[in-house]
Formats: sequence, C-alpha cells, structure tokens
Amino acid sequence: MNQKLYEGKAKIIYTTDNPEVLLAHYKDDATAFNAQKRGQIAGKGQINCTISTHLFKLLEQAGIRTHFIEQIDPDQMLVRRVQIVPLEVVVRNIAAGSLCKQTGLPEGKILPNPLVEFYYKNDALGDPLLTSDRILVMEIATPEQIEQLRSLSLEVNRILTQFFNQCGITLVDFKLEFGLDETQQILLADEISPDTCRLWNQSETDSEKRVMDKDRFRRDLGNVENAYQQVLERVLAQTST
Amino acid sequence: MNQKLYEGKAKIIYTTDNPEVLLAHYKDDATAFNAQKRGQIAGKGQINCTISTHLFKLLEQAGIRTHFIEQIDPDQMLVRRVQIVPLEVVVRNIAAGSLCKQTGLPEGKILPNPLVEFYYKNDALGDPLLTSDRILVMEIATPEQIEQLRSLSLEVNRILTQFFNQCGITLVDFKLEFGLDETQQILLADEISPDTCRLWNQSETDSEKRVMDKDRFRRDLGNVENAYQQVLERVLAQTST
Repeated sequence: MNQKLYEGKAKIIYTTDNPEVLLAHYKDDATAFNAQKRGQIAGKGQINCTISTHLFKLLEQAGIRTHFIEQIDPDQMLVRRVQIVPLEVVVRNIAAGSLCKQTGLPEGKILPNPLVEFYYKNDALGDPLLTSDRILVMEIATPEQIEQLRSLSLEVNRILTQFFNQCGITLVDFKLEFGLDETQQILLADEISPDTCRLWNQSETDSEKRVMDKDRFRRDLGNVENAYQQVLERVLAQTST
Repeated sequence: MNQKLYEGKAKIIYTTDNPEVLLAHYKDDATAFNAQKRGQIAGKGQINCTISTHLFKLLEQAGIRTHFIEQIDPDQMLVRRVQIVPLEVVVRNIAAGSLCKQTGLPEGKILPNPLVEFYYKNDALGDPLLTSDRILVMEIATPEQIEQLRSLSLEVNRILTQFFNQCGITLVDFKLEFGLDETQQILLADEISPDTCRLWNQSETDSEKRVMDKDRFRRDLGNVENAYQQVLERVLAQTST
C-alpha cells in the first residue's frame, strides 16, 4: 500500500512496498514567493515529471548519481529513498531573480564564472542565502560535503547547459537538491524542470517573450502552459536525436 | 571652512582645511531596522566618540592601522580621508541578531570559531548578507582584499575581546567598516561603540539586563543612556589602569 509520506508545494511523496523506493507524484500546483502566490499550471505535473525523467537519465549517462529509478506514469516516478540535505543549491550562469534583487546586479548580466549558492531549505525562515561558514555552524554539512555539492552542481551545470543549448534554450540558473543514501553517498534528488530552472528561448530577444519557465507564472507573463509544453517538446526532440 | 560632506545615520562628516583630513561629528540620533525605527539617545554622540577614540588608540598600539587621528571635542574626531569599502564586516563570537533570525540558531549559542560575515552597505537593498563569490561578481573587492579584511577583522576581534573581558564585558559581535587610503592600503574606519558592537555585562545573567548596547534601543529595553554610560566608564577605567 502506498502511504503519503510528505506533501510539498509541487510534489507528493508516497511510500511503496519497497522501503528503499518512494513514489513521487508531480502536481499541477504552482507556488511562488515562498508560497504567497498560488495557482495551477494545467499539465505541469506530467510535463515536469517527463522533463525531469529525461534530464535525470541524461545526467546518469554522464556519471552523475541521481535518485531517479523509473517513470511509471506521465506524472509519477519511482525514486530512491534518501535523506534530503536541507539546502537548495543554486547554480547561476546569468544574473536573475533574487541575486539581482539582493545585490543590484542587472538582470541578464553574464557572470564571469558560474556562481554556486546555497540556500537554507526552510520555508519558515524564507529560504535564506547561506555562506559556507553558516552551513558549518548550523551543522548542515561538513566542509567536504559542501565541496562535493559545489563540484557536483558545477558538473550538472556543464551537462545541462550544453544540452539546453542544443535545444535552443539558455540555462540561466537552476536549483538542485541533494540527498544522502544509506551509505552517506550524495545523490541528486528532487526534480529538474521549468519550475526549478530559468530557461530563456534563444530565438527570442525580448526580456518577457524569451521566458520559458516559472517566471511566466511569478511575473504574470501569460502563456505559462505553452512555455512548459515548448520546453518538453524541445527536450524530447533533442533526446530522440 | 568646514563643509558638510556626508550625513549618515549616526555621524556627520565635514571637510577640513587639510584635504586628507575629515572631521567626524558623532550625533545623538539612533536608528534601527534599516532606519525604520528612529530616536535619540541623550549623550550618545559624546559617549561613542570617546569610546571609539579609546578603542582606535588601543588597536593602533597593537599595530592595526585606523583612520583615527585625534579627538578634538567630546563628540568630534579628526580622521584620515579614505574611500570607504561598501561592506559591513561583522565578526560574531556568539549567535545573536540577524544571524539567529536568518538561520534559526538560538541566541547566545557560543560559536565554535569567530564567524566573519560580509554585508553589502546599501540601505536601499537592506544591507544584505554577501558571500565571497557575490563580492567578487559585484567587483566590490578582490580575493586578496577579502582575505585581508577577514584577517584584519579577526585580529581586531582578538584585541577587543580581550580588552572588553578586562572590562567585565562580553563582546558578542560587532560591525567594522574599512576604507582605502591614497595608496590603496586598507584602514579601519567608521566607529567602534555600543552602536556597532553587541556587549553583554558579565555580572548579569538575565538576557535583557545584561544588554549594554544598541539592542536596548532596538528592543525597547529602557535605560539606554545608562548602559552606554556604563560602557564608557568601564572603558575609561580600564584604559587608565
């Protein structure tokens, strides 16, 4: 029997008969600004589950260990049970979002090197930015784990940037979550989708038209479903070539 | 003729006849929470100017270069003109204030090592926490300057912690600002006072009674003037011994 283990903003996690395996059900629910803005994006669950499936497979093929096991339904995948590290690891290639709000850097500024940032996965505290020193004081991760998360995230960025380029999409930034398996090995977890990546259509230059990700929902730009669908189609087309 | 060069929340800076020398007038005005809370602390200008004078002299004697030249009035000091680095460097020995709000660490937790943190000195952005990587992307300081600011701040912490201990006061945390002189050397600037340090009276254990700094104003604990006066008296007594 599948029992609900946890319901997040975009997914519900169920147990399965195998204690080491969980079922992730991707929802159409969309939230932004620490859940102050709520809505639905029709078809998002299936789209994000399918995009994530393809990207996890791509990463696995490149040697990145992930929690992904199998997509068993358009909006459901089996994943390995891990203990989630309470960090959101954000990799940024181009300045956007909270980086601009917090630093005054102009949106669209190409960063000289990819920037890896850690945020505390804690809704009550508003997912604050953390320095490495704060992560250590809070005993969230060891120095070695921080370095491993950083280098894994940069490797994921290299693979995904190249793949999305082939799709005609610029990977502006994205958020990763990681978990520890029973041997304390780090696995990539959560999802990789237009909910968790900023994706800009390379055939559009307009700063609103080019947006293919959750910023369409955050910023009320309209055509949210179409944008997500477009990303899916390009990912599928590129994967099949 | 002295001309007003800049008016901050707690000081007014004037030019002097010597272009390399400025006059800092310490005000009684007090602000907190990014100037959303405003008030006056009677005698604060004179107290903070005199405490800062003694602490700058103490640091100079220990080999730390500061902008301090001479106290010429109870609330006025001459300082060297520097180009202020737009960072607030905070050194923390015990968790308090924004560190606790942003991380959930309990107030009063003794940190395993002093924590050096950088905040962007920018009222419009709310003085946000910066990582070293953000400082580099924003081109506020070079990697070498960041390391120099960090080691200078830790050295200041060692000296001030020892001195305040001799005064029966625990140095919980404090904020420093630095400037560059005409040869790009880093000097300690701004002030060091109960406005910029968290100071706990070691003869009180009560979490409110022990507070000897601007938290009395921030948190409406009363007896603000007395607390500042107490710090001054202890600093003077310790300096004359």
